[in-house]
Amino acid sequence: MHITVQREKLVNAVSHVSKAVSSRTTIPILTGIKMKADEEGLTLTASDSDVSIEVLIPTEEGDEWGVTVHQPGSIVLTARIFSEIVRKLPSNEIQIQVDDRLVTQIRSGQAEFTINGMDANEFPQLPQLEEDKVFSVPGDLLKAMIRQTVFAVSTSEMRPILTGLMWSLDRGQLKFVATDSHRLASRTAMVECPEELSFHNVVVPGKSCNELVKILDEDQHPVDIVVADNQILVKSKHILFYSRLLEGTYPDTTRIIPQGSKTEITVGTKEFLQSIERASLLSREGKSNVVRLVTLPDGSVEITSNAPEIGKVTEIVVPKSLNGEELKISFNAKYMIDALRSIDSSEIKASFTGPMSPFVIRPTDHDWMLHLILPVRTY
Amino acid sequence: MHITVQREKLVNAVSHVSKAVSSRTTIPILTGIKMKADEEGLTLTASDSDVSIEVLIPTEEGDEWGVTVHQPGSIVLTARIFSEIVRKLPSNEIQIQVDDRLVTQIRSGQAEFTINGMDANEFPQLPQLEEDKVFSVPGDLLKAMIRQTVFAVSTSEMRPILTGLMWSLDRGQLKFVATDSHRLASRTAMVECPEELSFHNVVVPGKSCNELVKILDEDQHPVDIVVADNQILVKSKHILFYSRLLEGTYPDTTRIIPQGSKTEITVGTKEFLQSIERASLLSREGKSNVVRLVTLPDGSVEITSNAPEIGKVTEIVVPKSLNGEELKISFNAKYMIDALRSIDSSEIKASFTGPMSPFVIRPTDHDWMLHLILPVRTY
Repeated sequence: MHITVQREKLVNAVSHVSKAVSSRTTIPILTGIKMKADEEGLTLTASDSDVSIEVLIPTEEGDEWGVTVHQPGSIVLTARIFSEIVRKLPSNEIQIQVDDRLVTQIRSGQAEFTINGMDANEFPQLPQLEEDKVFSVPGDLLKAMIRQTVFAVSTSEMRPILTGLMWSLDRGQLKFVATDSHRLASRTAMVECPEELSFHNVVVPGKSCNELVKILDEDQHPVDIVVADNQILVKSKHILFYSRLLEGTYPDTTRIIPQGSKTEITVGTKEFLQSIERASLLSREGKSNVVRLVTLPDGSVEITSNAPEIGKVTEIVVPKSLNGEELKISFNAKYMIDALRSIDSSEIKASFTGPMSPFVIRPTDHDWMLHLILPVRTY
Repeated sequence: MHITVQREKLVNAVSHVSKAVSSRTTIPILTGIKMKADEEGLTLTASDSDVSIEVLIPTEEGDEWGVTVHQPGSIVLTARIFSEIVRKLPSNEIQIQVDDRLVTQIRSGQAEFTINGMDANEFPQLPQLEEDKVFSVPGDLLKAMIRQTVFAVSTSEMRPILTGLMWSLDRGQLKFVATDSHRLASRTAMVECPEELSFHNVVVPGKSCNELVKILDEDQHPVDIVVADNQILVKSKHILFYSRLLEGTYPDTTRIIPQGSKTEITVGTKEFLQSIERASLLSREGKSNVVRLVTLPDGSVEITSNAPEIGKVTEIVVPKSLNGEELKISFNAKYMIDALRSIDSSEIKASFTGPMSPFVIRPTDHDWMLHLILPVRTY
């Protein structure tokens, strides 16, 4: 292999694929980035057991030069060292040349690195997916949908299926659900897809979703998504992102969402968030992180928390409206903070059905998002 | 104590004094910030065994309101909680009121915190220093002088005196020296002081110097410095910064700086720095972090390093001038990188007296700064 590649493009490609390099793998070849040069350009690949990422640097794109392939071929270089080297190289052009013994020369300006490479044939093949289930989402929407739900996936391996984000598609509506069994976040959106396409129980590991968010561009450029039996593939311009799916059946969460409500509070998202954040300053010290919400006869809402030996805090929030029965309820402040932070709308409605029942937080200006939080029994 | 204080000023003051709060102290009162309200305004104090910081928020400053003292008094509040609270309070005004049982109410907007305080009488008194040795330095110069030397203090407690920065003053020239016995950094500057004032062997702990840098403003406003027997006091506007001095005799470092030179290289600082940084990418992997510098017959300089099993790197640097004997020398790349990064000048001169002797790096445009590095024996 012998190529000359544009520095900035190589730096970006290496930075993208590096997200799939495992630092704690026992398989040496997986600590590396595979480079393959052919008539299309230079393809970089990295993979751990959960995620694989492939990025193409085309020979040319529009008027822009990307890479010149003097001699096709392939090599695997240790990711950590290779990425540090490319970031520090002095010139806009980088020449990479591999000899028969896999010794790789990297030249740029007056700098010359000689690195021992690994055999690209030993690098695992990426899966070939049947592309019969394909749909398309704008990149920024996919990013937003993941961000607004993924924080609620479980971090405990007790029920592995809950460490994933459940994707489903029905009649053009894409839905993401995450729950750790104490709280739930759900987000839906209409997407472009064949009318008859539907799937359920496609559970993408939360960790994969977090990596995917980092790779997607913040623009409306459509991203194609291929759903296969045990893999998902996200295609964005020159990037292919593969993730394995979690095995098992995701619980049916539709039944636990209460339909009616006994108390309803409509309030400014930011004001409510900041009050809860302040109240949680003390409760965090007391480890439990529980805050208490009480409706007052004058139509305002009192939020309190206390930490033994440290002190207590009282916040008064004046909601836009407060309807229904009076209420005293306690909940984990972190769950509420996570939910409120994920909501872009300026106003939310909280719907309660009693002090011991799960309650629901929704933005007031659309129906695409829902957060459910289980209360804590404190008295 | 009962006061109303401007939020932003309190946030800044708390952030400054917090730098002197020890997180790992066994004395509970030292986990706190002391507040004292009197006719001058509100004074905040924090202290650990090495550093004490005192910040005054005056009642008024020019046209700007700072604090209103409704009732003088004092209290100590746990630093971590108090600083989180003040940062998150909603309104521009914060009211703090302490009752007889040291219970402290902090009110701002609709938020009200009730915190258990500690008795301010238990807080240690700051030292009263005799102000007979006083001189004055612009704040930004003092910051620069510390930054350009403090990285070379020793981190090993084997010779505690070397963990400090040695300050001396003679005939109006202030000098800072730091060495860990493998490299040395020195910086001098002319300062405003009484003609007869001189001192030597004033060794300020490196840690204190690093905290001081964070507190000083980046402007030419003069900072007064009081040197006492075992303390130093730096006065900057409304901030007093006390540090203990290290006990012991700092080694005489003037003798180890070579006077002549056999090989001299003049080179662009940035170009040289980047070459060494790249060369150290591989040597760091090999743990030793040694790079090798060789003068070539064509007047250029070759910098190489290699890491067994990983690879090697060769850099060619074309210096502005190269005079004297040919040279092959090896040194720790980190020491060279630290030195070059601390130099603001665009060009440096490196003066060598042989492969086994310490060499000197100086900027070419002034004499205020000097770096000495001991080579490594590799062959």
